[in-house]
Amino acid sequence: MSLTNANPDEAARSAKSASHVLATLPTAARNNALTAIYSALTQAKDEILAANARDLELAKKAAQDGKLSLSIVSRLDLNKKGKWEDMLKGILDVRELEDPVGKVTLRTKLDDGLNLERVSCPIGVLLIIFEARPEVIANIASLAIKSGNAAILKGGKESTESFIAISKVISEALKFTEVPNGAIQLVTTRDVVPQLLALDQYIDLVVPRGSNELVRYIKSSTKIPVMGHADGLCSIYLEHTADPEMAAKVLVDSKTTYPAACNSVESLLVEEAALVSILPVVAEALLEKGVSLRCDPASKKALTAKLSAHSAALLQDANDVDFDTEHLALILSIKTVSNISDAITHINTHGSHHTDAILTSSEPLAEQFMNAIDSAGVYWNAPTRMADGMRYGFGTEVGVSTNKIHARGPVGLEGLMIYKYKIRGGGHLTANYGEGAGQKRFKHENQAL
Amino acid sequence: MSLTNANPDEAARSAKSASHVLATLPTAARNNALTAIYSALTQAKDEILAANARDLELAKKAAQDGKLSLSIVSRLDLNKKGKWEDMLKGILDVRELEDPVGKVTLRTKLDDGLNLERVSCPIGVLLIIFEARPEVIANIASLAIKSGNAAILKGGKESTESFIAISKVISEALKFTEVPNGAIQLVTTRDVVPQLLALDQYIDLVVPRGSNELVRYIKSSTKIPVMGHADGLCSIYLEHTADPEMAAKVLVDSKTTYPAACNSVESLLVEEAALVSILPVVAEALLEKGVSLRCDPASKKALTAKLSAHSAALLQDANDVDFDTEHLALILSIKTVSNISDAITHINTHGSHHTDAILTSSEPLAEQFMNAIDSAGVYWNAPTRMADGMRYGFGTEVGVSTNKIHARGPVGLEGLMIYKYKIRGGGHLTANYGEGAGQKRFKHENQAL
Repeated sequence: MSLTNANPDEAARSAKSASHVLATLPTAARNNALTAIYSALTQAKDEILAANARDLELAKKAAQDGKLSLSIVSRLDLNKKGKWEDMLKGILDVRELEDPVGKVTLRTKLDDGLNLERVSCPIGVLLIIFEARPEVIANIASLAIKSGNAAILKGGKESTESFIAISKVISEALKFTEVPNGAIQLVTTRDVVPQLLALDQYIDLVVPRGSNELVRYIKSSTKIPVMGHADGLCSIYLEHTADPEMAAKVLVDSKTTYPAACNSVESLLVEEAALVSILPVVAEALLEKGVSLRCDPASKKALTAKLSAHSAALLQDANDVDFDTEHLALILSIKTVSNISDAITHINTHGSHHTDAILTSSEPLAEQFMNAIDSAGVYWNAPTRMADGMRYGFGTEVGVSTNKIHARGPVGLEGLMIYKYKIRGGGHLTANYGEGAGQKRFKHENQAL
Repeated sequence: MSLTNANPDEAARSAKSASHVLATLPTAARNNALTAIYSALTQAKDEILAANARDLELAKKAAQDGKLSLSIVSRLDLNKKGKWEDMLKGILDVRELEDPVGKVTLRTKLDDGLNLERVSCPIGVLLIIFEARPEVIANIASLAIKSGNAAILKGGKESTESFIAISKVISEALKFTEVPNGAIQLVTTRDVVPQLLALDQYIDLVVPRGSNELVRYIKSSTKIPVMGHADGLCSIYLEHTADPEMAAKVLVDSKTTYPAACNSVESLLVEEAALVSILPVVAEALLEKGVSLRCDPASKKALTAKLSAHSAALLQDANDVDFDTEHLALILSIKTVSNISDAITHINTHGSHHTDAILTSSEPLAEQFMNAIDSAGVYWNAPTRMADGMRYGFGTEVGVSTNKIHARGPVGLEGLMIYKYKIRGGGHLTANYGEGAGQKRFKHENQAL
């Protein structure tokens, strides 16, 4: 690992060259490197937490001066209960995952002695840009090494001291492993992001881990593919055959368990026929949890008629912009639709193609919804908050993608892989195959994997 | 199908909306649309060929005035032997392919009554930009409809008359099918490409089919992902244990069967130990086929000593730039390397990551080469020209990609697909799962596909 403060171009070139070695290392060599990182970090706990304390002190001052939000200060703190242990456990968890490199996903006999194989391999060089949380370094370094990718890491300035301390330890640990120097590049200087984003000849994929603004800025500033999501405007469609109690619970879970998360629900679409029968139960449960309900006229009218005066007084009016807004807070927009088609059109037009759910007792309607909604996650009677790599059983999560190519939804290690085609032949010539007289035909026999 | 001469924004918005319908059509509806296109084109042969004759006449005049290359004129001609029949047969071939939509590629039981599925689905809206060949319209329309994607087609101006004639017929034919109007958008006005490339809110993938210059221009002009390859600088490494006769045949096949193709070999790297024993046989065979050999000093010296005076006189000197050049002609650059590591480094640095081959009798060296070379195709004792969707058995080819994400190498229908995650639940709540007291654990049981 190198601490490159100087030249982004050099860092990227060196990462590319290291990626070619890293891609050829056997499983054991990559796993051993993770063990080495784990042991070194375990031993260096005191010095890393001391560095983290210096970051925290500066951040707290900045927060007192109103220059930094308290939530960033909180995310900086490596000493928070369980955080250090989770970071270390994460390294071992990644190590225990199945090796994603070298999986054969297609095997075709083209002709006798001429065989085609499609084999998974690393993408190459990842650029990871993240904000405050210093433990991301250990997480990302593990994911990169496990998947055989080189990585360039650029962290937020608030965590500089922690970042340097952790990376020095990782760097020393890797010296005694087969992972080449240069495979993990750290960039600690400021203002290099635009330069890095221009290096598409060396960097193959950018993974931003941070705020919507960060992701949006990166997506609009580079030719390199970016894996992630800028927005998470998730919707739930409440159909009139839904179970009211279940609907209330799923809405509360989707809205209140982590309102700032990208997979929290932002818009509730209510079928007209459910306005009187189900919506009041749902609304009462949400209001009880402190959720502000921004209602269109029809839903407000229905709720006002049904709710207690106290509850009804809490209802707010929705503006058009509410249905295009990711509130990231205890606010839910409510819109009335006449049927499932209107709901589908609304979601495909106003949503962010992240995760959307239908609440209904009708299987045909559920299937129609899941087929027609153009989103990474489409759920029937389940909360949008299920959209998560750990909950999906991926063991780890690189991020959540709303891209339409490569990887979509929660992304595990697979999202850091591509494939290559290998052909093993015996001097077979293309000129000998074709439809002409005396020419051979390819056999194209699928073989067992 | 719409003939939109007016507004690229409207064309793209309309394609997006049609894509949402198209994505939900069953296999039969999409296949029936292909049958309808096939029948309509069959019946309209005369009027289409008449339109094509008008394009040809203009093109021939332009060629006489030196304003158009003869190769473009030749590519325009739909009346060339077999071309019309191939175009029609291509539609039926695509129809007969396995439906790529709705394939379940992952099935996990998250908990009792809570099931996760990963299902293939169309990407959405494709923008296909192509040059002269008018038959591409029928080919692309078939691929788009089969894969459930909407498509915006922009053809070269030389084929405007043919393009309009073919698309009118397709448009009429689709009226009597379930494929929505707007699913295939044709843009015939000039100068709209920059506008289309800016519509990343509607267009999900750009597929350029044309010259390197076209691809390079598009890649540098849009935020939308582009699937294709600008360059095809393929190399072959000749190791000293290779069979000389086989090596000669593979080189001749790789260089001479279609020198303008992206999968033709451009650089030959010769192991020092093969200079005297094998290179002369290879060189003689290539010279006999009219290939110009641009040699580095060591290979020239070795060849000059071994070849006849007549052959030796044909040898040229290589400049550095030759090893970074896609000649696309009967020219081969020859460089001497001391061993396989040098060959690998050279190819990973100077190649275009398209297709590269090793000629050797050593299996360990072949495997080392195939693992270490960072290219879409890595071959042992096979010509680089094998890199082709039809030869790989994909039934059709959308293009060849040198991208590092999504799809790499020859791309079949699979490259036009992404996936979505479906969850079918029974009101399960995320808040009930976790490591805390009284919380449940996910089961994460893989189910049969």
